[in-house]
Amino acid sequence: MKKYKVAILGATGLVGQTMLKILEERNFPIESIKLTASARSVGKKLKFRGEEYTVVEATPDAFENIDIVLSSAGGAVSKELAPEIVKRGAIIIDNTSAFRMYDYVPLVVPEVNAHALKNHKGIIANPNCSTIQLVAVLKPLHDYIPIKRVIVSTYQAVSGAGTKAIDELYNQSKAMIEGNFQKPEKSVLPQSIGFNVIPHGGKFLDNNYTEEEYKITIETRKILEIDDLAISATSVRVPVVTSHSEAVNVEFEKEFAIDKIRELLRIAEGVKVLDNPDNHLYPMPIDVAGKDNVYVGRIRKDLSHPNAINMWIVGDNIRKGAALNAVQIAEKMIEMNLI
Amino acid sequence: MKKYKVAILGATGLVGQTMLKILEERNFPIESIKLTASARSVGKKLKFRGEEYTVVEATPDAFENIDIVLSSAGGAVSKELAPEIVKRGAIIIDNTSAFRMYDYVPLVVPEVNAHALKNHKGIIANPNCSTIQLVAVLKPLHDYIPIKRVIVSTYQAVSGAGTKAIDELYNQSKAMIEGNFQKPEKSVLPQSIGFNVIPHGGKFLDNNYTEEEYKITIETRKILEIDDLAISATSVRVPVVTSHSEAVNVEFEKEFAIDKIRELLRIAEGVKVLDNPDNHLYPMPIDVAGKDNVYVGRIRKDLSHPNAINMWIVGDNIRKGAALNAVQIAEKMIEMNLI
Repeated sequence: MKKYKVAILGATGLVGQTMLKILEERNFPIESIKLTASARSVGKKLKFRGEEYTVVEATPDAFENIDIVLSSAGGAVSKELAPEIVKRGAIIIDNTSAFRMYDYVPLVVPEVNAHALKNHKGIIANPNCSTIQLVAVLKPLHDYIPIKRVIVSTYQAVSGAGTKAIDELYNQSKAMIEGNFQKPEKSVLPQSIGFNVIPHGGKFLDNNYTEEEYKITIETRKILEIDDLAISATSVRVPVVTSHSEAVNVEFEKEFAIDKIRELLRIAEGVKVLDNPDNHLYPMPIDVAGKDNVYVGRIRKDLSHPNAINMWIVGDNIRKGAALNAVQIAEKMIEMNLI
Repeated sequence: MKKYKVAILGATGLVGQTMLKILEERNFPIESIKLTASARSVGKKLKFRGEEYTVVEATPDAFENIDIVLSSAGGAVSKELAPEIVKRGAIIIDNTSAFRMYDYVPLVVPEVNAHALKNHKGIIANPNCSTIQLVAVLKPLHDYIPIKRVIVSTYQAVSGAGTKAIDELYNQSKAMIEGNFQKPEKSVLPQSIGFNVIPHGGKFLDNNYTEEEYKITIETRKILEIDDLAISATSVRVPVVTSHSEAVNVEFEKEFAIDKIRELLRIAEGVKVLDNPDNHLYPMPIDVAGKDNVYVGRIRKDLSHPNAINMWIVGDNIRKGAALNAVQIAEKMIEMNLI
């Protein structure tokens, strides 16, 4: 089997480190691994398959003689380096939003739209974490009866904002429990997250939606290839470390049996149904953290509309929502002889 | 001004104690106060207007010679004692779900449907906490253009389940931060809540909705007096101490300007608009805890439907969601010469 020269861009971040871990877990066909990051992380050491690797600076030339770059170093870095990486003959699977909406860039969840990889021009975009777990569940349903409208409210973990956000959550929670919390002067998240929820992710846009909400909207349309899908999102940060949850209302073009929905989801790739209310079984972030599949439960008819259902979708935002999906894209491209 | 003989049923609970505090804060016209609770709380002492009162057992005869009973002692207790209280000539404003859906029992949020109090037969029901803050915002909008459909996802604080649930949240969070969390054998909430979210409140019903979701549905219909209102709820417990949040999608019978919505809410009684995204102003549970008003923000057109909007509603579940609303019902009944 062919082996690949792989580089990670942003290797020291939470997603970068998880990429490295997942490459190891899945026994990815690696000839060599190169860990790159910004200047301030140069010299740090990370382990891969029992050996220590030193992080080098992510300059354009660092990507000479590389086949696959897995990238999660921030939008500005990707914008600058992705063209340089492609120029040097590698493909880059980019976890930032920098290229997601470009027509020439496939935006891919392998279980959903692997076919879009065929026409890649070197840059492949990994979707937003909230979008990935949503489309993984919507796609098998849409294939059966077209989806007309989606209303989603998210319950997003702080780890999407990096390890500093996790520290913030822990420090603030601890201080509040001890009764000596003082609002920090500067923080990663836009507000205090300890025992709070924040209806705000990313910048606010002119239409009063947040960037996070807008990403869910436009990325879902692109991945499902429904240009005019009616979709409305409210994105909320909750005091959870790992795994995003989503309360999702889906309206279909016509009515159908809820048992059929369950059956379609039960056989869907990358999706697990956990839906046994009598035994108090439904997906929850603490249980889904560390899992590869997207979990769905609380599947029920929407009593307010004959063609609609409600569901509860939970996925590990760092794994399936970021690092795992990127590695799965690389695996799928190998399988499709695209690299 | 006439003064009243007031008793609290369930005085030692979180809501009961808050009722006492609110009676004091609002200078309620009290001739005498009597604190009652179950046998195991008898003898406990609570302060009211600087004086100490001893809790007595909530037997039927404890409510002899009382004008107003504010009750929050659990559904079974209310079912047993409410008829006894009414028989003895008092009115009971009951915070449990025991009587809410009886035709002869007014279910009231004073700003919304005070007129329903007129035909009371002695028992008045205080709605579910999630319902109160929802209808406070929906009513002024519905009066302008009829509401057709409501989809609500809740982010509910643990204090609704009492002080033991708050202890659970703190203890579990602390153990998790310290890295030595073990799932408790028995707990108040159906699952661990520390850094988790739980899509489950109350028992599951045959239609796979939870009791909490069903309450929001049927109580909203009763209070807004729209028997066939299309409404769908997902009720989720989040690791927050006080204040419920709700992501609400509302579809109206026809299209209208979002500015009109804002204006209607700005002048609505008991509602505060906090909606300035540019300055990162929107309601959050830690800010709303301890406040009397229901806060609404993130008001925006639903991009997926011409007649719909999205909003974010936050209310203190112990105050407006329970104790305060009960006291306000009593105040309104005095104003209407009903007691």
